[in-house]
Amino acid sequence: MRAIQRLSKGSNQPAGAVERLYRLVEADLAHVNALILERMRSDVPLIPELAGHLINSGGKRLRPMLTLAAAQLCGYQGLGHIRLATAVEFIHTATLLHDDVVDESDLRRGKAAAHVIWGNAPSVLVGDFLFSRAFQLMVETGSLRVLNILSNASAVIAEGEVMQLSTMRNLGVSEETYLKIVAAKTAALFAAAAESGAVVAQADGLREMALKTYGHNLGIAFQLVDDALDYSGREAMMGKAVGDDFREGKMTLPVIHALANASAEEVDFWRRTMAQRTQTDADLTHAIHLIDKHQSIAATLTRAKQFTEEACRGLNVFPDSPMRRALSELAEFCVNRAY
Amino acid sequence: MRAIQRLSKGSNQPAGAVERLYRLVEADLAHVNALILERMRSDVPLIPELAGHLINSGGKRLRPMLTLAAAQLCGYQGLGHIRLATAVEFIHTATLLHDDVVDESDLRRGKAAAHVIWGNAPSVLVGDFLFSRAFQLMVETGSLRVLNILSNASAVIAEGEVMQLSTMRNLGVSEETYLKIVAAKTAALFAAAAESGAVVAQADGLREMALKTYGHNLGIAFQLVDDALDYSGREAMMGKAVGDDFREGKMTLPVIHALANASAEEVDFWRRTMAQRTQTDADLTHAIHLIDKHQSIAATLTRAKQFTEEACRGLNVFPDSPMRRALSELAEFCVNRAY
Repeated sequence: MRAIQRLSKGSNQPAGAVERLYRLVEADLAHVNALILERMRSDVPLIPELAGHLINSGGKRLRPMLTLAAAQLCGYQGLGHIRLATAVEFIHTATLLHDDVVDESDLRRGKAAAHVIWGNAPSVLVGDFLFSRAFQLMVETGSLRVLNILSNASAVIAEGEVMQLSTMRNLGVSEETYLKIVAAKTAALFAAAAESGAVVAQADGLREMALKTYGHNLGIAFQLVDDALDYSGREAMMGKAVGDDFREGKMTLPVIHALANASAEEVDFWRRTMAQRTQTDADLTHAIHLIDKHQSIAATLTRAKQFTEEACRGLNVFPDSPMRRALSELAEFCVNRAY
Repeated sequence: MRAIQRLSKGSNQPAGAVERLYRLVEADLAHVNALILERMRSDVPLIPELAGHLINSGGKRLRPMLTLAAAQLCGYQGLGHIRLATAVEFIHTATLLHDDVVDESDLRRGKAAAHVIWGNAPSVLVGDFLFSRAFQLMVETGSLRVLNILSNASAVIAEGEVMQLSTMRNLGVSEETYLKIVAAKTAALFAAAAESGAVVAQADGLREMALKTYGHNLGIAFQLVDDALDYSGREAMMGKAVGDDFREGKMTLPVIHALANASAEEVDFWRRTMAQRTQTDADLTHAIHLIDKHQSIAATLTRAKQFTEEACRGLNVFPDSPMRRALSELAEFCVNRAY
């Protein structure tokens, strides 16, 4: 229930939406959580210690839930989706550990990031360990197609992360480039999580594609909302610091939008703070003011809403069912959590 | 030929040994090198740039050569071993990129380490990319057994690296613990490289096991010699700085041996320099002097020789052939390069 509480904080009506999905996959998710604990074990104590710090920190388990939900929606009766969902969560955790080193973020899910406590080296290596564990789990499913989907996604995620690094502090980044980065670094795993659930259930190509499309669009919407919250959210709700993206010079849609509508003086502000990263404490407040002035959060969320609508349209190949409705509501909630 | 030149520098007779192996796999290795170049491509320019810096820096391609040699020794006629050997090299390269971040080494293969030029973040992420590429290549071989062997090896490597981190600056590390670390962080990939070559060739269990044993023992010997060279080698020959392990407080066999034979005063020296890492420029010279005094390099190499002998014994299940002889000579060379 901890995951639900975290998700529902700061919003009213949407909590029910995630809870409905959660109820539908609850039994499977309990198996996933047990398998996570089992497979992060190692004779080297630092590994479960560090991995557990992040894995037990109230993450939403959104991606493994997608895998479980997709498999169920396709009528799957076996147990392969448990391993698969665990693999998906391990890949996600590995990328978080590496991201925190890359971003130099101090907070993750409301706790000190692992690299702050243990240093960069163990964070990198435990990330590698979890990534390997993910592939071991996939091998156990015996499905080369699943391995294909998730190894492709992993490569795309890494490409997206490097692409993002390459565009840091670059005021010339377009919305198109930003969306390309988001599609790679975030949506690829959402898409793979949902698609591979369909594959393990041996669904036909149409349903596979529908779930992949759903995951892809949901993932983009999810990241857009995250990027909006980075300027508009409350720290207690997000479990990470407000303004991290600003401090790192990460070009996200709120800034890209505010910059597209900026006066010459405002462009100078963004150049100094984002491109040159010479920031004072008051600058974040001013950045939020400018983003507010140009209604850039609203613009970002409108864009996110388009992606969630696209996500839901993808589900139309499935007959109406509690699971289909839960997935639609999840997509809507994904944007509503920002209001 | 560059790989050969690098390997043969600083030694006389053994060059022929590696060259013989090289000649036997030369045609396959050319395919591997072409596939490496093809698969490190990405639309994100920083990826091939950074990966290429390391991959084109005259690495020995020892691990992929093992895969190619093992497949040939088992009479393989197909092409799957090319993809497999490329995957093995990518896993190796990924671990090198992450190791350099972890170790904070400034030199790798005689060039500035990637993280010195581009920073830690891209080194971590490009490592992840190459790791993912490795799994994509393995998926293409269509062999779940190969995927199983190499995903297991990857998890063990990460465990070994974390184990090594946990024992840094710890003067109480025993030779047994050290060998456990070496078996995990280095020998696991040698063993998997050789074993998976046999698997792709559909060799029987006895031959598979023989090649795995060969790789395992060769890998341990290889690391022991590397650790000896870190105190006794010449920088130009090694392509990395002498004394790196000393500076990092890494507990390797030369130090463990010297410490086991140390006077009280010498123990104090090791405690100050290794455990507390308060080192002056003259300390490395004194450390080398103590290692020399207790003949700890000789002891390390004697141990290495035992492992190479074990490696060669493993090959006895194969009838005599130029390839078997080349692999035996490689094992002998592995130790002789230190003299």
